[in-house]
Amino acid sequence: MNTDIAEVIIRPEGSLQILSYQEAQQLCDASDVGLNDILMRCALAVLNTGSEADNELALLERYPNFSIDVTVKGRGVQLIIKNAPRHAFVDNSLIIGLKEHLFAVIRDLIYSRNEVLYSKKIDLNTAHGITNAVFHIARNAQLMKPNVLPNIVVCWGGHSIPESEYNYSKHLGYELGLRNLDICTGCGPGVMKGPMKGAILGHGKQRYKQGRYIGMTEPGIIAAEAPNAFVSELCIMPDIEKRLEAFVRIGHGIIIFPGGPGTMEELLYLLSILLHPANKELTLPVVLTGNGTSTEYFNGIMQFLNATLGSAATDKLKLIINHPRDVASYMKEQMELVRQDRKASSDAYYYNWRLTLELEHQQPFIPNHKNMAKLSLHKDQPVHLLASQLRKAFSGIVAGNVKAEGIKEIQRHGPFDLHGDKEIMQAMDTLLESFVAQKRMKLDTSEYQPCYKIHK
Amino acid sequence: MNTDIAEVIIRPEGSLQILSYQEAQQLCDASDVGLNDILMRCALAVLNTGSEADNELALLERYPNFSIDVTVKGRGVQLIIKNAPRHAFVDNSLIIGLKEHLFAVIRDLIYSRNEVLYSKKIDLNTAHGITNAVFHIARNAQLMKPNVLPNIVVCWGGHSIPESEYNYSKHLGYELGLRNLDICTGCGPGVMKGPMKGAILGHGKQRYKQGRYIGMTEPGIIAAEAPNAFVSELCIMPDIEKRLEAFVRIGHGIIIFPGGPGTMEELLYLLSILLHPANKELTLPVVLTGNGTSTEYFNGIMQFLNATLGSAATDKLKLIINHPRDVASYMKEQMELVRQDRKASSDAYYYNWRLTLELEHQQPFIPNHKNMAKLSLHKDQPVHLLASQLRKAFSGIVAGNVKAEGIKEIQRHGPFDLHGDKEIMQAMDTLLESFVAQKRMKLDTSEYQPCYKIHK
Amino acid sequence: MNTDIAEVIIRPEGSLQILSYQEAQQLCDASDVGLNDILMRCALAVLNTGSEADNELALLERYPNFSIDVTVKGRGVQLIIKNAPRHAFVDNSLIIGLKEHLFAVIRDLIYSRNEVLYSKKIDLNTAHGITNAVFHIARNAQLMKPNVLPNIVVCWGGHSIPESEYNYSKHLGYELGLRNLDICTGCGPGVMKGPMKGAILGHGKQRYKQGRYIGMTEPGIIAAEAPNAFVSELCIMPDIEKRLEAFVRIGHGIIIFPGGPGTMEELLYLLSILLHPANKELTLPVVLTGNGTSTEYFNGIMQFLNATLGSAATDKLKLIINHPRDVASYMKEQMELVRQDRKASSDAYYYNWRLTLELEHQQPFIPNHKNMAKLSLHKDQPVHLLASQLRKAFSGIVAGNVKAEGIKEIQRHGPFDLHGDKEIMQAMDTLLESFVAQKRMKLDTSEYQPCYKIHK
Amino acid sequence: MNTDIAEVIIRPEGSLQILSYQEAQQLCDASDVGLNDILMRCALAVLNTGSEADNELALLERYPNFSIDVTVKGRGVQLIIKNAPRHAFVDNSLIIGLKEHLFAVIRDLIYSRNEVLYSKKIDLNTAHGITNAVFHIARNAQLMKPNVLPNIVVCWGGHSIPESEYNYSKHLGYELGLRNLDICTGCGPGVMKGPMKGAILGHGKQRYKQGRYIGMTEPGIIAAEAPNAFVSELCIMPDIEKRLEAFVRIGHGIIIFPGGPGTMEELLYLLSILLHPANKELTLPVVLTGNGTSTEYFNGIMQFLNATLGSAATDKLKLIINHPRDVASYMKEQMELVRQDRKASSDAYYYNWRLTLELEHQQPFIPNHKNMAKLSLHKDQPVHLLASQLRKAFSGIVAGNVKAEGIKEIQRHGPFDLHGDKEIMQAMDTLLESFVAQKRMKLDTSEYQPCYKIHK
Repeated sequence: MNTDIAEVIIRPEGSLQILSYQEAQQLCDASDVGLNDILMRCALAVLNTGSEADNELALLERYPNFSIDVTVKGRGVQLIIKNAPRHAFVDNSLIIGLKEHLFAVIRDLIYSRNEVLYSKKIDLNTAHGITNAVFHIARNAQLMKPNVLPNIVVCWGGHSIPESEYNYSKHLGYELGLRNLDICTGCGPGVMKGPMKGAILGHGKQRYKQGRYIGMTEPGIIAAEAPNAFVSELCIMPDIEKRLEAFVRIGHGIIIFPGGPGTMEELLYLLSILLHPANKELTLPVVLTGNGTSTEYFNGIMQFLNATLGSAATDKLKLIINHPRDVASYMKEQMELVRQDRKASSDAYYYNWRLTLELEHQQPFIPNHKNMAKLSLHKDQPVHLLASQLRKAFSGIVAGNVKAEGIKEIQRHGPFDLHGDKEIMQAMDTLLESFVAQKRMKLDTSEYQPCYKIHK
Repeated sequence: MNTDIAEVIIRPEGSLQILSYQEAQQLCDASDVGLNDILMRCALAVLNTGSEADNELALLERYPNFSIDVTVKGRGVQLIIKNAPRHAFVDNSLIIGLKEHLFAVIRDLIYSRNEVLYSKKIDLNTAHGITNAVFHIARNAQLMKPNVLPNIVVCWGGHSIPESEYNYSKHLGYELGLRNLDICTGCGPGVMKGPMKGAILGHGKQRYKQGRYIGMTEPGIIAAEAPNAFVSELCIMPDIEKRLEAFVRIGHGIIIFPGGPGTMEELLYLLSILLHPANKELTLPVVLTGNGTSTEYFNGIMQFLNATLGSAATDKLKLIINHPRDVASYMKEQMELVRQDRKASSDAYYYNWRLTLELEHQQPFIPNHKNMAKLSLHKDQPVHLLASQLRKAFSGIVAGNVKAEGIKEIQRHGPFDLHGDKEIMQAMDTLLESFVAQKRMKLDTSEYQPCYKIHK
Repeated sequence: MNTDIAEVIIRPEGSLQILSYQEAQQLCDASDVGLNDILMRCALAVLNTGSEADNELALLERYPNFSIDVTVKGRGVQLIIKNAPRHAFVDNSLIIGLKEHLFAVIRDLIYSRNEVLYSKKIDLNTAHGITNAVFHIARNAQLMKPNVLPNIVVCWGGHSIPESEYNYSKHLGYELGLRNLDICTGCGPGVMKGPMKGAILGHGKQRYKQGRYIGMTEPGIIAAEAPNAFVSELCIMPDIEKRLEAFVRIGHGIIIFPGGPGTMEELLYLLSILLHPANKELTLPVVLTGNGTSTEYFNGIMQFLNATLGSAATDKLKLIINHPRDVASYMKEQMELVRQDRKASSDAYYYNWRLTLELEHQQPFIPNHKNMAKLSLHKDQPVHLLASQLRKAFSGIVAGNVKAEGIKEIQRHGPFDLHGDKEIMQAMDTLLESFVAQKRMKLDTSEYQPCYKIHK
Repeated sequence: MNTDIAEVIIRPEGSLQILSYQEAQQLCDASDVGLNDILMRCALAVLNTGSEADNELALLERYPNFSIDVTVKGRGVQLIIKNAPRHAFVDNSLIIGLKEHLFAVIRDLIYSRNEVLYSKKIDLNTAHGITNAVFHIARNAQLMKPNVLPNIVVCWGGHSIPESEYNYSKHLGYELGLRNLDICTGCGPGVMKGPMKGAILGHGKQRYKQGRYIGMTEPGIIAAEAPNAFVSELCIMPDIEKRLEAFVRIGHGIIIFPGGPGTMEELLYLLSILLHPANKELTLPVVLTGNGTSTEYFNGIMQFLNATLGSAATDKLKLIINHPRDVASYMKEQMELVRQDRKASSDAYYYNWRLTLELEHQQPFIPNHKNMAKLSLHKDQPVHLLASQLRKAFSGIVAGNVKAEGIKEIQRHGPFDLHGDKEIMQAMDTLLESFVAQKRMKLDTSEYQPCYKIHK
């Protein structure tokens, strides 16, 4: 019988273990002012780690009486948890890994909020200020390991993928693990899980004890994409943009698996950074890869990039189909180049300070009809700006496809209008059509209704 | 392309790293006198770790030019390996875990042979001498960890099982891992792999770093059942009987998953020990378990044991169907009783010295027609002796079913004759019929031809 | 030849290793505004660690061209050190322990200053605020170790003591070390060194690897009392009062060795806290001890305390002469009581939050003629307040004896006037006379000229 | 009061912790047959570790009822110790370091004896067999650390030395420690203690955690020269010759401090090896060093060597007076050459297999009148043989000076006669005269009576 655990009291581990009275008090106070709901949802997602993928609503319905309270007792804080999922416990003790994740939630939602977001120390209106904020949150989550050579591979791609693609991601993770490379993903199932699972086996066979499986998430998706069972370090960034920035500054290389328009959006975000003139000399290897079934998908993308951004963009990418060993070898070699690059510039190994991001990379794009129509999709501009505009176009398509707000907009006002150079619009049309043909546009529909209209 | 690695030279790690000149010389000499063939086959099996299950012949055919040589160079031994499977290497370096396994092969086949089997120090004609020999080999393999509380769970059962049973074994391994219990199995796929795989996840979630995944094998089967990818400690006992003794002396609890007559043979071996009057007071928990589809199988076994050995035998066993959490909790509790038992008697935690085995447990039974016909399957004897006789009967059936020698015997002389008390013979008949009905007698035949004839 | 090291560039270890750009910049800025002189003097003292005790002036004269600069380079800060003492280096590399101490200086002087003293987060006008500040500085110095049982013994006493007393302190340190107790002292020679030296041997014999030798100092004395060679953790509190508070909150027991009026001042400070009504139930063991030659000294103190504060005070103290083994055994036992006390109240093991200090314990007493004359040395007040007044009287005597400012005051205005109850004044007179007779008043004078006048 | 500990029962740690029943039984049996007396004396010496230097007799008289018994209980051996010195215990528990040393005594006296000396496996009549035996005993004592670069400095010299020389040895130990070099000495006081004490401080300042302080002794002297308090690894070789061989094979460099004829004997032993033609190319740095007061002593030695063995011998030695920093720097540099030398020849870092020793280096010289008179002290022979003859001459002088047997011989038959080339005899005379003049001949006599007569 799967009864819940009525009540447990838990004391922190890690950076929340040694708080001053004053800090402990602030933590409790903060948890009272409006944070409790988001805290509860994140905590429940974490306690549900490793269960079958779940949507948030179903989770809340299944544990309607779940609650979590942060209180001060004696030397520090404690959590009072009521009616939590039984499978998070072994013989009435919370599983240690889940306990760590739970305090990661507290740490990142409350503590970092006090110290970073609401403190006066950091100016969040400047690009540099935001970059410092991301650093502080990641450091507080103990993601920065000094004296470790570059070896973090970020894996992006769809979280709901066919089994053959999942198996490929696992196999690639195994090859990465055999080369003592660590994994960082977005925390949930699919491509966020496969490489971690594979890497654990690879690390084990190489007797590599300090393997890292970093899950980087944000409050808006953690509930829907609960951390998979392999995540060993969990960090919750305050929003999507800071999470993206964390990926590119903490990762030493990036692997992009097949996905849909969302993955395309991430790729264009990455290109808009890599093509920025200030980043011209930086080493940040990017590989597009998948098993045989992804050939068409990636070829379509490369053609689209060639037609729109040209070889400047495709030169930044390496496409390797169905050769996990080659991907891993390439990444391993590139890590050495990254190391030399950082060393030569006295930059940290654990945070890519030299990478230039502009405020527009760091602030949300609001995908409404007006903003979408205003996009400047023509070639008469620096290539990194065009990449940025294209990224926003795909951001809108993702919203129109799957985000509650976006879907409502489309229902009310019809599809988004996209204007631009004929060549670009043509390429976009072709790419999106191919996504539709490959059933990559939207996961659960048999027939796709476009949420955009391309004006060539 | 899966080309082989032409030649590599490897220096040892672990206990073979610090040898005296004299020992190194003996090692090389020994590898020349007849051992080279068995050494080569075991080494190839190890280098093939984690590949799909394979039969030995196919393996040898696939790597016809594989060779391994032990030589002395300077301070110690080195291996020269030629034409080894490419997937055992990463960028031309042998995977560290495989290197460990490879030297485990050398260590157990040669070094232990010099020091234990062919040394004058140990009298292998006595039960006590053999028990000491098993200890020395296991110690040399560094399986004995002082200052660690009892927590090794041995898992027995079929190596070729349906997916649902494999998944159950994995789930149970996960629950064992969540309770910081370590796993010891017979090294290959199926039930020897599932619990290890599950335990790794459980250990990871509990941040239990020192998890052990012990594979105990012997030269006759290692080639056919290559160590699975999760084995972290490999030990090759000289023969089947010493391997069985190692299981019961090193394990602190035993879980039996579904299998066929082979599993039945192991269970009867275990009962013949547990029912021995000298072992009456010892704590050694045994659980029979499987998912729902195994209900009939285990019920049949329990009925057979009741009818033949009576409640003395069934009292030693705990049957739990489809409740992995309960199995794991029970084992965890029993570990504490084992600890108390050992402590009270000043016995080691790492080796069950007090368990009494007789020579007949330690020496092979040769299943020919004469020996089978002589078996004394009647109740007019102490129950542990009857258990021992029954075990031999099943040993013969296994041989007649699947072992080359046994099959030839049956072809030549017809089925084995089995005589005994009517009640016993009846129970045996019923049980074997049910195995046939459940397709557990022989894995690859549609219609089973019995290799025995029961005379009631 | 003892030439200096012309220039070295050093990158940080420890908590200064992972700074954000913004923090690194602030660190450099801070080191420019007025801190450079104090930073230089502290750094030079640290680099001189383990040399014969030295006075600050002599040190500066010997290394007149020594300089230290904090700059930003690439990923973080670096130090540029010029003309440093050669014996701090081995083959041109700074000794690692000294490097740690050097960054402890930067950390505590600059970083803590930004984050604690000049930040708005902590209200330094309240007792609680100051207690939090001490906590933050100590935590930043990584003095707080979670999950460690109470075992820190603070040793107080003279830094310039006869050899027999030094040997006794070493012997006692050895006995403490044999019991796995850690040592915290004021960092310099004499009684601050002996117990550490002894404890290292004791820890070594018990194979206790994590021994701690904490030196707690402040900028005003570090130059004159450079950390001895055994200090493994160095923390520089901003002023005398915070250093005293750190001692009583971080230590789990206190041992007082013979000294002069300075030691008497510390003892009275301690009593004024222990006798505070709010601290009545707290466990904080205090032992007065020394070898045979200290008998008279301690008897004098006990008589003085009896006559002034009564048994309430002497009950808080345990006097053990010349039995280091007994002192260590007693401390070991008391550690268990401290643990129970902390556990029962959910207080931290690493910081004594429950100990009540008033602002007057935390703010400096200025020992001028006016303040000294105003002291209220009569029994018609709660005993902890009288202890506090007496402490201030001794504070003044110490200043008049050895501190530059105090000596000047005395030269200008004659001795301090001390008024009070006859009994108290009599006891004080007797005690001070005995200090004079024992040559404990001032170290380097053959004939002592009192800096006070007692009005009975 | 220093009462003894009536009775304690102790279970082993280390390699004796995991014994088979058979081995445990053999251990007990062996301790019964004649070993008990030597075992008792060694054990008592160990328990007296760190006390003032003591002679054996006094020790036995002080603890007349001390006894030690090895027995089997349950899983393994245990020691029953009665009436042991109280200072070896803390609150009734044996100090852990002493427990380790105690089991080192059992291990080396009994276990190694069974496995090495009395086993048939090793032929002790050949040079190679003895070298293997020394290896096995040292390995069983866990002195061999794989994967560690050469860094063991052996220190030889007098155990009863003036304070200034002791202080010099401590200072040099400190400089060695600062360079992460480990120390190996003969275990007792004086020059065997000073370098260890200094190195501990140096290691501590460099935060070098794995410092090794190896004490190499033998049953005949351990009682008189109990291990000093800093020895962390104790090994008891069966006799003087194996101990000397262990020094030269395990050490990577050798420092010789001032001593008397005994030190001269060791130096000549070393030269007879280094000058052996087979060892011509080997790297084994040797430094003669001391503070200023040793100038005359070492100059005398160098002149003697020049006159007898010539520059072949003095070229092998580096003389550095009163510059500990230079000695340590030189040793550090040489360690790298040793490493290259070992690597180039595939020799182990932890045992100098390639060093050639002849049986005469490995077997005792019996210094009676006949053997002394037969010594061949002329130049008409290879220089390494002359070195060997000279070594024996000094061996006889040491015996005649301080060994019970030798002294008796001299009393009975008058001084030893020494014959040889005039030049050699002259040099010998001069050197011995200078020893007498420097009071280095015999420690406790005001006027030295020569035990030899030199015939020029």
